Amino acid sequence: MTLNNQLLVALFGLGRAGKFQLESIRSNPGVSLIHVVDTDLEKAKAVANEFGCEYGRSVDEPLSNAGIDAAIIATPTGEHFGQIVASLNAGKAVFTEKPLGSGLEEIDTCFQLAREKRLPLFVGFNRRFDPSHSSLAQSVRGGEIGALQLVRITSRDSPLPRMDYIKTSGGIFHDCIVHDLDMIRFISQEDPIEVYSVGSNFIPEIQAFDDLDNVLVSLRFASGLLASIDVNRFASYGYDQRIEAFGEKGMLHSENRYPLSTVLSSEAGVSRPPIEFSFPSRYREAYHCELETFRKCVVKGIPLPITYEDVRMSFLLSDLAECSYREGRPMRVEG
Amino acid sequence: MTLNNQLLVALFGLGRAGKFQLESIRSNPGVSLIHVVDTDLEKAKAVANEFGCEYGRSVDEPLSNAGIDAAIIATPTGEHFGQIVASLNAGKAVFTEKPLGSGLEEIDTCFQLAREKRLPLFVGFNRRFDPSHSSLAQSVRGGEIGALQLVRITSRDSPLPRMDYIKTSGGIFHDCIVHDLDMIRFISQEDPIEVYSVGSNFIPEIQAFDDLDNVLVSLRFASGLLASIDVNRFASYGYDQRIEAFGEKGMLHSENRYPLSTVLSSEAGVSRPPIEFSFPSRYREAYHCELETFRKCVVKGIPLPITYEDVRMSFLLSDLAECSYREGRPMRVEG
Amino acid sequence: MTLNNQLLVALFGLGRAGKFQLESIRSNPGVSLIHVVDTDLEKAKAVANEFGCEYGRSVDEPLSNAGIDAAIIATPTGEHFGQIVASLNAGKAVFTEKPLGSGLEEIDTCFQLAREKRLPLFVGFNRRFDPSHSSLAQSVRGGEIGALQLVRITSRDSPLPRMDYIKTSGGIFHDCIVHDLDMIRFISQEDPIEVYSVGSNFIPEIQAFDDLDNVLVSLRFASGLLASIDVNRFASYGYDQRIEAFGEKGMLHSENRYPLSTVLSSEAGVSRPPIEFSFPSRYREAYHCELETFRKCVVKGIPLPITYEDVRMSFLLSDLAECSYREGRPMRVEG
Amino acid sequence: MTLNNQLLVALFGLGRAGKFQLESIRSNPGVSLIHVVDTDLEKAKAVANEFGCEYGRSVDEPLSNAGIDAAIIATPTGEHFGQIVASLNAGKAVFTEKPLGSGLEEIDTCFQLAREKRLPLFVGFNRRFDPSHSSLAQSVRGGEIGALQLVRITSRDSPLPRMDYIKTSGGIFHDCIVHDLDMIRFISQEDPIEVYSVGSNFIPEIQAFDDLDNVLVSLRFASGLLASIDVNRFASYGYDQRIEAFGEKGMLHSENRYPLSTVLSSEAGVSRPPIEFSFPSRYREAYHCELETFRKCVVKGIPLPITYEDVRMSFLLSDLAECSYREGRPMRVEG
Repeated sequence: MTLNNQLLVALFGLGRAGKFQLESIRSNPGVSLIHVVDTDLEKAKAVANEFGCEYGRSVDEPLSNAGIDAAIIATPTGEHFGQIVASLNAGKAVFTEKPLGSGLEEIDTCFQLAREKRLPLFVGFNRRFDPSHSSLAQSVRGGEIGALQLVRITSRDSPLPRMDYIKTSGGIFHDCIVHDLDMIRFISQEDPIEVYSVGSNFIPEIQAFDDLDNVLVSLRFASGLLASIDVNRFASYGYDQRIEAFGEKGMLHSENRYPLSTVLSSEAGVSRPPIEFSFPSRYREAYHCELETFRKCVVKGIPLPITYEDVRMSFLLSDLAECSYREGRPMRVEG
Repeated sequence: MTLNNQLLVALFGLGRAGKFQLESIRSNPGVSLIHVVDTDLEKAKAVANEFGCEYGRSVDEPLSNAGIDAAIIATPTGEHFGQIVASLNAGKAVFTEKPLGSGLEEIDTCFQLAREKRLPLFVGFNRRFDPSHSSLAQSVRGGEIGALQLVRITSRDSPLPRMDYIKTSGGIFHDCIVHDLDMIRFISQEDPIEVYSVGSNFIPEIQAFDDLDNVLVSLRFASGLLASIDVNRFASYGYDQRIEAFGEKGMLHSENRYPLSTVLSSEAGVSRPPIEFSFPSRYREAYHCELETFRKCVVKGIPLPITYEDVRMSFLLSDLAECSYREGRPMRVEG
Repeated sequence: MTLNNQLLVALFGLGRAGKFQLESIRSNPGVSLIHVVDTDLEKAKAVANEFGCEYGRSVDEPLSNAGIDAAIIATPTGEHFGQIVASLNAGKAVFTEKPLGSGLEEIDTCFQLAREKRLPLFVGFNRRFDPSHSSLAQSVRGGEIGALQLVRITSRDSPLPRMDYIKTSGGIFHDCIVHDLDMIRFISQEDPIEVYSVGSNFIPEIQAFDDLDNVLVSLRFASGLLASIDVNRFASYGYDQRIEAFGEKGMLHSENRYPLSTVLSSEAGVSRPPIEFSFPSRYREAYHCELETFRKCVVKGIPLPITYEDVRMSFLLSDLAECSYREGRPMRVEG
Repeated sequence: MTLNNQLLVALFGLGRAGKFQLESIRSNPGVSLIHVVDTDLEKAKAVANEFGCEYGRSVDEPLSNAGIDAAIIATPTGEHFGQIVASLNAGKAVFTEKPLGSGLEEIDTCFQLAREKRLPLFVGFNRRFDPSHSSLAQSVRGGEIGALQLVRITSRDSPLPRMDYIKTSGGIFHDCIVHDLDMIRFISQEDPIEVYSVGSNFIPEIQAFDDLDNVLVSLRFASGLLASIDVNRFASYGYDQRIEAFGEKGMLHSENRYPLSTVLSSEAGVSRPPIEFSFPSRYREAYHCELETFRKCVVKGIPLPITYEDVRMSFLLSDLAECSYREGRPMRVEG
């Protein structure tokens, strides 16, 4: 597709997600930024200056540039669906942040179009690419702990997101828990048969949005596997991201990471500086691996690691988990 | 009651529980063993030799000995109720392993009798006395982590108990999970309003008893607190006993303990020898503190740390948790 | 020697060392206290009451009691030599805290007498019996890390000992570093060929005794092994006792121990309560194992784990280490 | 100096050091590579392709390019001195890997020339820029642990360097220990008054070069501070880089880092994958910070963090440490 396996990309959006995509692009010698798009033209221009690339307010120009292989979509949620469709129609491979659209139908549309166009549609479930999470998943699937009996995931955000973000986030099930549901399927390679959720609020503003800030999800699988996810919108001590997998032969953890490896022993005890504060630093390596994997999907034709089925199921399970909370009863998962 | 605050006790039963009671008695200078009872007379005699005390097959003799302050009941489950009643009627303070009897009615009978006789009836929820668990509970109740939002307990047994033990254990809810339910109430000082359980089997023999070996319980509280308990009859890597308490201002863990503090760094990685293998070593300090607390209840009149309400609620919640599993739906907790 | 492998002992001294010997005796079902001696008769009487044994001010009575197998000497340093000799002459096995006497000659006298009388003379190098230190030593000697290249020991006291103790302690080399020198020989099973020390003072009172509070010792061995000991009279954060052994195939640590296994995560970081505060709790298990080993030496005739050569060499090396500091040059160790 | 604080650099050398300089340049948006030089023209061309820069075999061309602000010297040791002098004479700021030259005289020459030309001469003591080491140093200097009493550094290489590298490395004192001596001065902000070294060999090839693979250095300071450095050419378990600082109020560690945060609990114990394998990954962040600091020295005129005095003293102390080993006696440090 390109000389030397170099991937030539346009980046749409320079917000929160766009920023760490930029960082991944910068340090990946196999990816070149050709065009950057943002509604804030000054922002786009500054990036263009650094990267020696074009910039603008509209996606039309890069989509009609035959020299561009792929679009990286990091715009606000509401624009994803339209840009995915336009990009695929323009013959570009697509790397998009989730969600693809507003529901199962739009997800189906995107993947059907990608299939028709024979173009990679890569959905950003970044946590699968975290070296520690991914090593845990590989070990489980490789049988290192024998038959899998329990998976526990803790996901607590830090810092507390802005209320205007939360308001339009789609709610804690579709914004946060979808990642954990995907991770459990990624680790277990099995779909649950039942979902049950309880939730509560400690932050009144979030309750006012009819959203939750504290949720506990239980999952049951046909193999006997059980799973538990606990999610919170705010952990005072940092971005808390832990996985535990328990099996007949052992237990695996993927634990929190620390920016510093210093330890202080004093009269008060033995202490370390806080864990990673937020997702851009915690998942920096995951974002780098994710982009590099996308590059290989496009230029080397390796299969997409996240399939249509993955995207559909994580959406469906998030929906059922929310339903379970609202109806106060366990929900069966219908294939 | 006795000279020098010395507690003079009879010990009933020299099985698994009796053995670590013996060890606690041995190292507690404030407790003297006066009489030991076991159906295996040779066993009883050997203990009597070491402690310079009397021994026999029947509880009648020690119960009629006015020089004995208290009975420690460590016999098989089926004998607890009768021995508690007989001991209280004989005017002895009682320290009994759980359960007190076969249901709520017998629990009520025991505590009513104790109240009438004005005698301490001390029920062995040993984990409350573990220094780390108890320190966590104190910190939570002291407000160190602010409003409590989530409690997670992992309880996995090691080694796998003998099948004849499990067969008559009363089932995983009443034999194991009752401890964790008590611990959650101990930490939160709140009763849950709803219980939901899922469970499965990886050990066919246990399934054959209509019992479970893998259970996940979710609890919901009026304050917004959520709680999760996961229990397994067998962890290959040792006796896994962990608590996590998450609150608005921080998180507390009570982690597993290691008999050794050695660490090996090699080409294969960095490794420590296994965690404590089983409950007698893991909870040795807890058993010592428990006996010492009982001594103080009897000789110094300090209030019982575990009340009638505690014993009743942990029983009731275990029942509801089991019900929830059997009926496949969340159960309301009625005061 | 005794019925049922029971060891019948007299304990001399109820000070700091006597107290934890008492605790070891109490929890060891194979050791019975027959007689306790202290200049403070009230203290001795209280112990006698608990143990149901005899008591007094003089060692003569227990030494003439044929029913006693062994003397445990925990009196002040100055009385050790006389009591060791008297006990051996009375036909008693001896467990003595170090030092045996005021110099190499008295050490020789004690061991020669023990040899003549064919009685066990057991010297309390308690750290050898710590389960973690001892596991490290066994692993090293078993070849787990291949050829041993470096041993590092950190030994820092807590709390700061009373100045009247330090004044008569014999100095930091003979009071503290002797333990670390013994430990290095225990691990490496090799004698050093050269010793070099530097030292300094941060506590003026200790300097006033012509003693040091901060010392660093380097050792060189014929095999190529190097060793480093750093010792301090006071660590603010607790009793710091660590060993590192580095070899061609790996590295072993014996790390500090924590009384609690709780962990707090907060905005300030992740912290554990302090390590063990002082030696009686840190080395409780070591003292128990030590007494049990002594019991087996006496009643089962197993060989003494600490030999005349061990006691002599650790004394000699302490002397050379002090010399090196005073003369400002490395000292050769002459066989 | 340049537009937007952008630093325009030439890179000399694409060997081991050049490679991680490239990585730092790539991910630093404030540094642009204008010219790359290597004797292997193919290598240089590949880099030029990625960065869109010029390339060649000689340093003359970039040194005469007025558009270049600075030279980054990562060539073999023997070329450093000549290239530093040429670059300074051409008016370029210089970032050079150590050593600057073959002895104190050449060091003096370089710094004198830099002073005359008023150009930054930045010497790559990368470890000072490691976030954890640097945080430890700041805490010590900020008084967090009170008066500093002991510093211990462990530095063990991994993997074992190639023998042809070691042969021309200048020996373990000038190649390795110089870093640790610099670090101790960086932490303590004090010069030692005495140095003593012992060393040995476990790798015969290294002994054949009249070099050592296992060294232990002791340092004494006028303030009472003591310091210990242990260095080894090969640790089987990874690149072992630890610092301990002990003071009157506490202790600080900078511990090894792990690429993964997974933990496996199994019958064999609790284990983590190995620590960082080698310096490029272990000190990746340090190299990034180092380059960014150099950029600020050049474009913002902040003072050089590593002074002439630092470079001179670390060289001098390495010399004395080697001398001490060869002569078997402690060496006084003369101002």
